[in-house]
Amino acid sequence: MRLKALLVSGVTLMAASVGSAAYAQQAALMPLPAAMSAGTGQLLVDGGFTVALAGPADPHLTVAAHTLIQRLSAKTGQFLAGAPVAKGATLTLTVTGVSAAVPAPQEDEAYTLTVTPKGASITAATSVGINRGIATFAQLVTNGPQGWAVPAVTIHDQPRFPWRGLLLDVSRHFMPIASVERTIDLMQAVKLNVLHWHLADNQGFRVESKVFPKLHQLGSDGDFYTQDQVRQVIRYAADRGIRVVPEFDMPGHTTAWLVGYPELASAPGPYTIERHWGVFDPALDPTRDSTYQFLDRLVSEMTALFPDPYFHIGGDEVNGEQWKASPAVQAYMKAHGLKDTAALQALFTTRVQAIVARHGKHAIGWDEIMDGDMPKDVVVQSWRDTESLKKAALAGHAGILSAPYYLDLSWPAGRHYAADPMPENLPAGLEGLILGGEACAWSERLSPENLDIRLWPRAAVVAEKLWSPKDMTADIPAMYARLDSVADDLAFAGSRHRAANEAMLARVAGPAGVGAVWSLAQAVEPLKDYNRSTQRPDAVQSTPLNRLVDAIPAESAVAREFGLAVDRLIAQPGDTAARTQVRSLLERWQTAETLLAPYRQATPLLAELAGPAAKLTRLAEAGLAAADAVATGKPLADRAAAKKALAEAVEPGAELEFAILPAVTRLVKAAP
Amino acid sequence: MRLKALLVSGVTLMAASVGSAAYAQQAALMPLPAAMSAGTGQLLVDGGFTVALAGPADPHLTVAAHTLIQRLSAKTGQFLAGAPVAKGATLTLTVTGVSAAVPAPQEDEAYTLTVTPKGASITAATSVGINRGIATFAQLVTNGPQGWAVPAVTIHDQPRFPWRGLLLDVSRHFMPIASVERTIDLMQAVKLNVLHWHLADNQGFRVESKVFPKLHQLGSDGDFYTQDQVRQVIRYAADRGIRVVPEFDMPGHTTAWLVGYPELASAPGPYTIERHWGVFDPALDPTRDSTYQFLDRLVSEMTALFPDPYFHIGGDEVNGEQWKASPAVQAYMKAHGLKDTAALQALFTTRVQAIVARHGKHAIGWDEIMDGDMPKDVVVQSWRDTESLKKAALAGHAGILSAPYYLDLSWPAGRHYAADPMPENLPAGLEGLILGGEACAWSERLSPENLDIRLWPRAAVVAEKLWSPKDMTADIPAMYARLDSVADDLAFAGSRHRAANEAMLARVAGPAGVGAVWSLAQAVEPLKDYNRSTQRPDAVQSTPLNRLVDAIPAESAVAREFGLAVDRLIAQPGDTAARTQVRSLLERWQTAETLLAPYRQATPLLAELAGPAAKLTRLAEAGLAAADAVATGKPLADRAAAKKALAEAVEPGAELEFAILPAVTRLVKAAP
Repeated sequence: MRLKALLVSGVTLMAASVGSAAYAQQAALMPLPAAMSAGTGQLLVDGGFTVALAGPADPHLTVAAHTLIQRLSAKTGQFLAGAPVAKGATLTLTVTGVSAAVPAPQEDEAYTLTVTPKGASITAATSVGINRGIATFAQLVTNGPQGWAVPAVTIHDQPRFPWRGLLLDVSRHFMPIASVERTIDLMQAVKLNVLHWHLADNQGFRVESKVFPKLHQLGSDGDFYTQDQVRQVIRYAADRGIRVVPEFDMPGHTTAWLVGYPELASAPGPYTIERHWGVFDPALDPTRDSTYQFLDRLVSEMTALFPDPYFHIGGDEVNGEQWKASPAVQAYMKAHGLKDTAALQALFTTRVQAIVARHGKHAIGWDEIMDGDMPKDVVVQSWRDTESLKKAALAGHAGILSAPYYLDLSWPAGRHYAADPMPENLPAGLEGLILGGEACAWSERLSPENLDIRLWPRAAVVAEKLWSPKDMTADIPAMYARLDSVADDLAFAGSRHRAANEAMLARVAGPAGVGAVWSLAQAVEPLKDYNRSTQRPDAVQSTPLNRLVDAIPAESAVAREFGLAVDRLIAQPGDTAARTQVRSLLERWQTAETLLAPYRQATPLLAELAGPAAKLTRLAEAGLAAADAVATGKPLADRAAAKKALAEAVEPGAELEFAILPAVTRLVKAAP
Repeated sequence: MRLKALLVSGVTLMAASVGSAAYAQQAALMPLPAAMSAGTGQLLVDGGFTVALAGPADPHLTVAAHTLIQRLSAKTGQFLAGAPVAKGATLTLTVTGVSAAVPAPQEDEAYTLTVTPKGASITAATSVGINRGIATFAQLVTNGPQGWAVPAVTIHDQPRFPWRGLLLDVSRHFMPIASVERTIDLMQAVKLNVLHWHLADNQGFRVESKVFPKLHQLGSDGDFYTQDQVRQVIRYAADRGIRVVPEFDMPGHTTAWLVGYPELASAPGPYTIERHWGVFDPALDPTRDSTYQFLDRLVSEMTALFPDPYFHIGGDEVNGEQWKASPAVQAYMKAHGLKDTAALQALFTTRVQAIVARHGKHAIGWDEIMDGDMPKDVVVQSWRDTESLKKAALAGHAGILSAPYYLDLSWPAGRHYAADPMPENLPAGLEGLILGGEACAWSERLSPENLDIRLWPRAAVVAEKLWSPKDMTADIPAMYARLDSVADDLAFAGSRHRAANEAMLARVAGPAGVGAVWSLAQAVEPLKDYNRSTQRPDAVQSTPLNRLVDAIPAESAVAREFGLAVDRLIAQPGDTAARTQVRSLLERWQTAETLLAPYRQATPLLAELAGPAAKLTRLAEAGLAAADAVATGKPLADRAAAKKALAEAVEPGAELEFAILPAVTRLVKAAP
């Protein structure tokens, strides 16, 4: 973010202000550890840094040591020896037990990290806790006057919630193995511990089935994971203390299944892979025994492939249209006294849950599965609201919160951070049923190219909410003060959020050169919530994700800084530094229209930005006039023009919104 | 480069000037095709773009089609269907024959590319020529008013030289498979066709030997390629029409061999892997039959692993010290009438060449192997000068030029481009002995992190020199006019030259924020030739490559633009645009000292930049005074200060040089 902040405002000003903030925060931790006490001095992490292993031998532990060495090499740019040493190591990793092949849902993740000027140690029950400790250690390494070092410190740390997940939707847009493994690396870096792999939906069935090969052969456009690749990913995740929970969403969200097996549906085929976004009619037929025989064999195959004790069966967004339209289904419902399609779905869920249980797994489902009378061991994942978790807990179900953690909806980090997984007023004794939460990356508008731009660093904020003690996660400005450094760290851990942003902006700019779109790019954010779908309902799976809206972060750091400067100016009209910063940014934004003007016909990617650029220029002009009025106390000359600019800025177009609009609105309101 | 250009000068100014240049050059081709004629209209490359294959089925051809789809997807940000279609394709790839498992040294690489508004076709003898054609096609795709498109065109193209290589030194610093494969991708994009894999040297033996396992076990620090990985790389390269020629440098440059097999040397061991850079004494003992028995078995193993008919045996930089110090060797030389160690090396080379020939391969060696009486089929690779290629040709040897193409010496692209592989005054009839050339990436100061910064885009300039007709590669400014767009294209083909530059600058800047080093970074370049070794002779294999000098490109595009503007100003003192551009850049550079001042003790990476920053500020001040003097015709007020600044700027320190020094010197000289 620093580079961009720098670009927009004056170099001298920003290098000083952003620089100092970064310096103070440079050892920023996220998630914050549960307990930390500072020691004296620091441990150098120079080219002689080595790791030793203690306790019973465990291949997972060896990988953890290697992961840390790799991460420190990448962060510091030093060539560090990869192999653990027998004695005299800088850092010793000690376990008391050997970890299982894959982590368990109630794994002991606690660790103790001690750093003195003479050496460091991380101790934990198994390699899983070591993985959490090395994530902390890597974040603690910073560059100072003596070079790379870790401050002396003692940390006793463990998670608040045992279930800290990230849902990766690989159905709507396929993500190759490299993207999945990189995501696992970054999850490890922020102590997330469950990869929820959303493998099948209307737009693609993404895992090889040897039992029903037409599932992936006809349902994936060739973009699927082989079972060997699945095993590789599970191993890769387990080495990093991360579980892999597969989801096969049913009975809705199954169009891709029906291309190969139309007989599973309640309406005759043929079916083709769904290319649109939304909720669709096709659904598995819950009235036929053959459906359950099919599912039994599929669940048998997939529960053998995925070792985690949890198995996600989806269950969301069934509109019941196929069932209502089918005389056979209607007759069945009548015969069985099912009053509506929700009741029919409940029956389906009950039977599928029984299949899952028979194969030795606990079922998880989205909110809607509570509609039936489910066995208590079914876990509810809430995508609608926190209240449904409370409702689930009252009914005896464990729950996982996702509703406020949808990363694809382009919320600011602070909005995710404000949401706590623990429902308010939950009766005492039920807290243990709240397992945690999951950040979600639904991929209607995510591609392998911009995935990291949407995930990072915001997923780290959700990770902290799920790991750190509740009272440590209440201060949103304090979180933001660490976020830039965390983003730096994630980039060195492999995240492409900045590199992709810059490369994609270069593509958008094309013949204009990136300077022509840079100032616009920093003033805007993608439309929030589902407003992109509303503005562009015709988007389909093949719609390119190469526009400005796809290239920019969900949250503009420059706009956030601008808002803070505006508030300082309004509070203290004589604050000349604030006025200078506000004016400097607005003057840059004022150039948006002029910069783009020569290129408005150059390419379609630029053509759609002419409108937003013009509106930004008007908005900046209004802001400049208002800032001067606020600072000088002289009345705003043309309030009507300012109001018009504000009104027009509400809808810039190109699926964008002006991130600076609230601050400019405050300025105009504050102007005398 | 555009982003950086933008940063240094005023946004409006540069966005316009760089932008227009980029627009004119946006379909920049490199290498230029041998013959090209423009048609009318253009072919759209939208989301419906498809490829069809014609001619005999060939897996290499299928990969070529997939490579093109991947590259176009990455470049345009569109989701393109990967599988070839049966009919109605946008582009048809037609071959008349099936390619061999690996390309041959005299492969037919010619292709014809025809583009009309209705469709495109590439025809070639085999998939090798198709690979060249798709590289051209991908470069031709640009974004215009109607979206992504290729202009209608007919191209008949073939290479000037059959041997267009890139030497990758993986011994001094190991490069993982991902780096090697990415390098192959980028070679394909600029039509390079030989990966010269420098696998063994004093600092590491990097390939698994099943016959002599201590070679890689004790000689590589664990950083080696398994034979399976080698086969994978050869296959990957062959799919892209690229040969893989291995080098096992001997009898010198073999310290890493001797760690496991000290008995091969002429002095008793034990040996350890060499950590320093330079020329060292250890060498294989040419006087013992056991040496040749060892080499026979090793060459047998390695010639079976590497299918290419050429096998590189090195032969460079043998200082003969071990031989001179060994009574046994001295006695042998006397007995055999060998007057010096060069004669002894010639004997060694003759015997090794015979071994290589017995295993069915042609030997290649560096200049020095000509010292003996070599069979004619030995190929000479010249690292010393072009003259030695002429000497080799006169002696009947084929030759490959590398001397002017060392990418690790940080020369500007134009200096590489000025060198032609064909020696001057070569007697007629010998031209066919000049096979081509190889760009070299020796890795004393290259790591996996900054590899692409050193290779790209400058390797593309060498590629053009080797591919395009001689009269097309004489115009250096015209080359530079295309280079920025080529660099854009290479980034979308996977090159990390920009992403790595930015990430590494962020690391250097650390707490200061990248703005504090940005203006300095654009004024400097790494020391050229071997001056880095001279300035820092203590650098070893583990010396971090994380400093500013490691992060910056070999050539500053901004400095080059500055030089052109300075020349315009000197030629036309009334050119106010030139004066503005010159002043704007110098004013930015003038801030270097102030920006860094608060951080001069912050980290060692920043501390070493305080001196260069102070000198840059003085240099910029001198430049500003001189520019004003030139523009106004008024005398330079303090010529002594200006001269002092110029003198001090000759050695900025931190292994840097001021790329802007020649232009500022011209300004001061031109000032009245």
